[in-house]
Amino acid sequence: MKLTCSRSLLASALQIVSGAVPTRSPKEILKNIKLSLGDGKATLLGTDQEVGIRYELLDIETDSVGDVLLPYQRITAILREVQDDEVTLEVNEQALWVRAGQSEFRLSVEDPVEFPDVATFEDESYFVVPGRALKTGIQRTIFATDVESTRYALGGVLLEIDGDKLTLAATDSRRLAVYQTHCSTQGAVSEEVSQPVVPAKAMSLIDKSIHDDEQEIKIAIHQNDILVQTGLSTIYARLVEGRFPRYQDVIPNEFHQKIEMVTSPFLSAVRQAMIVTNDESRGVDFNFESGTLTLTSVGQDVGSSKIQLPISYEGDQIVITFDPRFVQEFLRVLDAASPLSLNLVDGNSAAVFKTDESYTYVVMPLSRDD
Amino acid sequence: MKLTCSRSLLASALQIVSGAVPTRSPKEILKNIKLSLGDGKATLLGTDQEVGIRYELLDIETDSVGDVLLPYQRITAILREVQDDEVTLEVNEQALWVRAGQSEFRLSVEDPVEFPDVATFEDESYFVVPGRALKTGIQRTIFATDVESTRYALGGVLLEIDGDKLTLAATDSRRLAVYQTHCSTQGAVSEEVSQPVVPAKAMSLIDKSIHDDEQEIKIAIHQNDILVQTGLSTIYARLVEGRFPRYQDVIPNEFHQKIEMVTSPFLSAVRQAMIVTNDESRGVDFNFESGTLTLTSVGQDVGSSKIQLPISYEGDQIVITFDPRFVQEFLRVLDAASPLSLNLVDGNSAAVFKTDESYTYVVMPLSRDD
Repeated sequence: MKLTCSRSLLASALQIVSGAVPTRSPKEILKNIKLSLGDGKATLLGTDQEVGIRYELLDIETDSVGDVLLPYQRITAILREVQDDEVTLEVNEQALWVRAGQSEFRLSVEDPVEFPDVATFEDESYFVVPGRALKTGIQRTIFATDVESTRYALGGVLLEIDGDKLTLAATDSRRLAVYQTHCSTQGAVSEEVSQPVVPAKAMSLIDKSIHDDEQEIKIAIHQNDILVQTGLSTIYARLVEGRFPRYQDVIPNEFHQKIEMVTSPFLSAVRQAMIVTNDESRGVDFNFESGTLTLTSVGQDVGSSKIQLPISYEGDQIVITFDPRFVQEFLRVLDAASPLSLNLVDGNSAAVFKTDESYTYVVMPLSRDD
Repeated sequence: MKLTCSRSLLASALQIVSGAVPTRSPKEILKNIKLSLGDGKATLLGTDQEVGIRYELLDIETDSVGDVLLPYQRITAILREVQDDEVTLEVNEQALWVRAGQSEFRLSVEDPVEFPDVATFEDESYFVVPGRALKTGIQRTIFATDVESTRYALGGVLLEIDGDKLTLAATDSRRLAVYQTHCSTQGAVSEEVSQPVVPAKAMSLIDKSIHDDEQEIKIAIHQNDILVQTGLSTIYARLVEGRFPRYQDVIPNEFHQKIEMVTSPFLSAVRQAMIVTNDESRGVDFNFESGTLTLTSVGQDVGSSKIQLPISYEGDQIVITFDPRFVQEFLRVLDAASPLSLNLVDGNSAAVFKTDESYTYVVMPLSRDD
């Protein structure tokens, strides 16, 4: 079999597909990326058997049929070092030949027969979400997952579809990120509310696969797995088992204070306040008074800090203690100039950050020492 | 004591001085950088007791006298995160206060009395080398040192001064880098040939301290140590003990072949040939024929490669096997467009790379398998 294609297109395709390749696995064969040729098309496959991706290569020249397992780290090194725009892959004499310009590499390869398949998108009934909204939603929720957790389904992002409303939610039980957008349906999708929990690794693959903001993403939800089609990629994921927490219950509805801020100066103040925290004393006190936010932190054996920031708030003083990492991770996914509001009940209740109607971030405060 | 200075100048000064701070040391106090104020001047000191640096801070405002130990990682974090151009350091209540704009940090500090001193440059007799030549010489030799070695004095760079000729040389016994330039003398320096071996860490500090290419660098050589003054920095180093190999003896004088090449395409070919090498089979065969260089490598269980490069050589075929890392490290310190020549006796003798009269790089070939 033989394939000629653009070096840069192949390199970026391998980069996306490598997101599914396990870094550690007892099955050595999974460390490869499978290339399948047939019908003039070339497809790359990567999988860890829980999460997998199929990626269609464009602008190829081939009339071959067959499969080969690409040792992707060496191929990636070759594509980075060679200088030519075009590269040829050929399987011959039980080896893979990579040729570009005056360079020729012969790589030992494993038998592709053992490589597990990745499902194709065959569904005729599915949900449709605009690419830009889904990408934003993933980036604004995925950081709040707890991939180490075995509790509930915290290692994934909840995709709740109710009518034409799609909600993405993720939590590690100390903070919660919720993003809402619209979706439409194609074919006869079930009227029931669908609540799959998708592994964080698959959500990250979907994020990286969405290039064109305007592109429509197809999502087919099954009993135990999900298939997502984003232009050139199809991502398969086995769903996370277990119950996702009833996230609506932890979002307070009534607040006593609403504080308006801008992302960039607030993020800068939080990052400064983090400097003198340490593992023994993580908390930073957020002290809101009329016109001023004062952040204070005390790190045992390290020192202390006091950071002030002018704010437009005019109201009663309120002090609340946060783990600043949780606040920082939220601010980092926003645009520097974005306005946001912090909605407070009191210093001991869940605090709710909002950027606009579609994005809500809830943080449980730390108990105050004094 | 109190000091006001530019945030960016302090940050870049700390970055240079931190090059002397040991990453691991049984003496915890050495992990600090000492700030000394007196006579309206501010000096930063860092040392691991073998290599040390004094750095004078410019554009400061102070009328204080005193010393403080800066916990440099936290200070560096503060200087990175605060937004203001000016920063104030103050010692008060047995703590260091760092203030910038509306931010204030109190850092616990250790007692500066225990911090070892770093010598000042008091010599009236010394050698003078142009900054640009010394910087180039360091960068073209330091990578060939063997800092792990206890043999000879391979962990340092030889500074050989003979009349108005300064030679820098470094070797790990498998390859040798030699750079020559001119120097002048000030005062009554000894007529004897001076051959100190300076630790690689100190040479790196000197390199980073030279900003202005035209600046004149002063070098004072003593029995057991060396002092180098580069504008704002004074670098002290205890000399490496042991005999530096007679490097002149390993440079062949007569060659059978001279091959002219250009750095960038040659480096690209070498980097490609490295991809299919591994720890068991490192060697790459360099096959020079009229008009063409062919690099071939075979990596056990990995595969093989054949990289061709048009060259201007017109002569007999010659094959020589190198560890490609040694060739790559040499090519990396040259400008992409630099011409170079490879001078060969035969496939089993030391090969000599030259860029111009001042730079010579000798590599021992690997024994050929066939």
